[in-house]
Amino acid sequence: MMRNGKKNLGASYCLFPAPVVLCGTYDAAGRPNLATLSAVGVCSTRPPVIQIGVMPARHSHAAILLKQAFSLNIPSRKYLPEADYCGIAGGRKVDKFARTGLTPVRGTYVEAPLVGEFPVCMECRLIQCIELVSHDLFLGEVVATWVAEDAVGDDGWIDPRKVDAFCYMLQIRKPRVYHAVGEPLAPAFEAGKVFMQAGE
Amino acid sequence: MMRNGKKNLGASYCLFPAPVVLCGTYDAAGRPNLATLSAVGVCSTRPPVIQIGVMPARHSHAAILLKQAFSLNIPSRKYLPEADYCGIAGGRKVDKFARTGLTPVRGTYVEAPLVGEFPVCMECRLIQCIELVSHDLFLGEVVATWVAEDAVGDDGWIDPRKVDAFCYMLQIRKPRVYHAVGEPLAPAFEAGKVFMQAGE
Repeated sequence: MMRNGKKNLGASYCLFPAPVVLCGTYDAAGRPNLATLSAVGVCSTRPPVIQIGVMPARHSHAAILLKQAFSLNIPSRKYLPEADYCGIAGGRKVDKFARTGLTPVRGTYVEAPLVGEFPVCMECRLIQCIELVSHDLFLGEVVATWVAEDAVGDDGWIDPRKVDAFCYMLQIRKPRVYHAVGEPLAPAFEAGKVFMQAGE
Repeated sequence: MMRNGKKNLGASYCLFPAPVVLCGTYDAAGRPNLATLSAVGVCSTRPPVIQIGVMPARHSHAAILLKQAFSLNIPSRKYLPEADYCGIAGGRKVDKFARTGLTPVRGTYVEAPLVGEFPVCMECRLIQCIELVSHDLFLGEVVATWVAEDAVGDDGWIDPRKVDAFCYMLQIRKPRVYHAVGEPLAPAFEAGKVFMQAGE
């Protein structure tokens, strides 16, 4: 069906672009695991809460419930193959840290492994699990945000350009493609001022 | 505190990059409104569910509850100033559609306005509202995904390059900067195969 020059693809989903994060967990045997997710989003800022969608059959799902915790790790571009692999392989069969050579670092505040090589790693305490159909929604309160020294800017906070992240064209239909993050365009809360009127 | 070459920024949040979407609603007076959000993420794929985080004081918040619906509209890069403006201005005081010149198009399936000029518009039926602290979390089931003809690829689905979206460096600290989406790097579920072993 076409309407107003647009075509309806039906009950679908897409986000252009979506982030790519690796979710770290420890299972009942204490083995660290990683699962790559693009079903992730910030929910709330005070306290900081981030959601992830995880299929119940995934090895990470039981581990998050068991430890009531997970980590979220943002890969830089040079770790794209590792990140992609951790979205293909299953954690029940393969030790993805060992296979990729990534280093599990114990969380300081929650029982979840962080990825030593990645520029940004967040420790999350599970605060809620909402059952949907294909996925369950885990809400994690971020209790620590670890940033590699070489990704810290002059102001002592994260310089996103130094993180050198990449992104994902998330839609129901494959192929889905990773893209680089391009050049800075404009600061937020500035570019829109052209639409303001005097006195606003 | 430093650990393993990383600095702890504490209870914080970041996603590099986050998407930029405009949430469309009708209020009790039937006026269309737009609110720009980066607190957004895919939750579930079957059915397609997307979450948004909205502060209770925002005009959109009451409208979503009233109509049990919202739209999510992905701007292309040329609408960056309009998108930024809709994150600055308050919908109670200003008609953001009128001010920016964007065209409200009635949803076909839910009571929410879509942005006529944007390449991708999703109609969402509210399925759950979860109260957090600074924000409430709205879960929307996507019931229609409208794609502009010039953003459709040869296979009849969305060609993300034609959407020409931009992204947002979302973190607790400002300034936050919009970035372009850069060049394609690799297809997902391919780049990681280098870590597979024979027979897998």
